[in-house]
Amino acid sequence: MRIGVLGTGNVGRTLASGLLRNGHEVRLGSRTAGNEAAVAWAAEVGGPASEGTFADAAGFGELVVNATAGAASLDALNLAGAEQLAGKVLVDVSNPLDFSHGMPPTLTVCNDDSLGEQIQRAFADLRVVKTLNTVTAAVMVEPRLVAGTHTIFVAGDDAAAKAQASDLLKEFGWPAESILDLGDIGAARGMEMYLPLWLRLYGAKQTAVLNIEVHAGA
Amino acid sequence: MRIGVLGTGNVGRTLASGLLRNGHEVRLGSRTAGNEAAVAWAAEVGGPASEGTFADAAGFGELVVNATAGAASLDALNLAGAEQLAGKVLVDVSNPLDFSHGMPPTLTVCNDDSLGEQIQRAFADLRVVKTLNTVTAAVMVEPRLVAGTHTIFVAGDDAAAKAQASDLLKEFGWPAESILDLGDIGAARGMEMYLPLWLRLYGAKQTAVLNIEVHAGA
Repeated sequence: MRIGVLGTGNVGRTLASGLLRNGHEVRLGSRTAGNEAAVAWAAEVGGPASEGTFADAAGFGELVVNATAGAASLDALNLAGAEQLAGKVLVDVSNPLDFSHGMPPTLTVCNDDSLGEQIQRAFADLRVVKTLNTVTAAVMVEPRLVAGTHTIFVAGDDAAAKAQASDLLKEFGWPAESILDLGDIGAARGMEMYLPLWLRLYGAKQTAVLNIEVHAGA
Repeated sequence: MRIGVLGTGNVGRTLASGLLRNGHEVRLGSRTAGNEAAVAWAAEVGGPASEGTFADAAGFGELVVNATAGAASLDALNLAGAEQLAGKVLVDVSNPLDFSHGMPPTLTVCNDDSLGEQIQRAFADLRVVKTLNTVTAAVMVEPRLVAGTHTIFVAGDDAAAKAQASDLLKEFGWPAESILDLGDIGAARGMEMYLPLWLRLYGAKQTAVLNIEVHAGA
C-alpha cells in the first residue's frame, strides 16, 4: 500500500521504516520538501521511500499516518490539505504534549476533549483511527521488545478504518488478541490522558520499552 | 491497627469490611453520625466495627483512608479536621470524577494538578499515599478476582507511609512484586488521569473487574 507519514521526528521515521520493511511504499512528509532528516532517511533506507511536503505525503498515501508532535498536528494536517486527506484513513499516533512549562509535560487538550477528536471534527471526511500513542516508537513497530503479552488500543468512528489500521498493527507483530478496540474516537481522550501515567512508569522502570496488558475478571 | 475510613459508599464499605477481615479495628466516618449506610454496615459486619462523623473516624484511626467521592474529598477532610489528621498516614483511593455534565465523567482536577496533590498541599502534616484508585472496590480488597498478575500503584512523598500502605495492600493479597512505587505524590496526576482509559476498558471488557499489568523491556 502507498502510505504517507506526516512527521520526520523519531516516531515518524521509525514508523516509516517499519512500514517499508513490511512491503509498503512510504513517503515521509514535513513542513518543507527537502527536509534534512527526511532526505537522509530516504537515502538510508532505500527502496520505495520518498520524501516531500505534508501535502505531497498526504496526496501520495492511500492511507496517512499522523506522527507529528501533537501540539503541531492540526497545523500539519491543514498544510497537508483537506482535499488530499478526504476519504482516507488517518492513523493518528500523536500525543498532545506541551513541554513549554517544563517537566513533566502537560497536555494541550484533555478531560472534555482530545486531539484525536479535534482532528476528526476538523476533517469530517477523514477516517481517524487513534492507536499506538501509548507506546514508544521502537515498541510500535516491534512489540516483542516488551516481554510477555501486552495490549495496544484502537479507537475511531469507522469500523473499516479500524480494521485497516489493525492490519498494519498485525504486520508489526501485534497479535490479534492484543489489539483492543475501545470504541469511537471519544476513547482518544483516555488514550491520550494515559500519558502522564506512562511517564511515571518510564521513571519507575527506567526504560521506555514498556507497555501495559489489560486483564479482565476470571 | 485502628483505621478510620472516610466515606460510606460502596468503596468505603468494601474497604472497611476488608480491613476488618484482616484483623483491624475500623470506624467508618460520614458527614453525620448515625448515617444509615454506616450503621447498617457496622451491624452487619459485627466485630470491632463502629461508625461516626468524619472527625470521629479520623480521630479513631492510627491510619486514615479517604474513600469519599473525589469531588467531596477536601470538604470531608476539612470536616475530619487537621488536628485529627496531623502526622497520620492517609491512604487516598479517591478519584476526582465529575458526573454533573453527564457521561463520560470528567475530572474536577487534572493535567497540571491532581486531587492527591491538592490534599497533600491542604494538609501538610498528613502523609498522603495515593493508591488503589485504579481498580474497582471489589478488586482493591481481593486482587485475585482479576485473572493473572497485575499491577497496583503507590505514590507519595513519605517512604515510610508508602511502606505502611503497601503492608495493607499485601494483606489484601496484592503480591509484593505487583506493587509499583511511582514516586512522589505528583504521580497522583497520572494515576487519576488513567480513569478515562479505565472507563473505556470497562466498556470494552464489559466488566469492572479488570486491571492492567505493567511489562517492561525484555
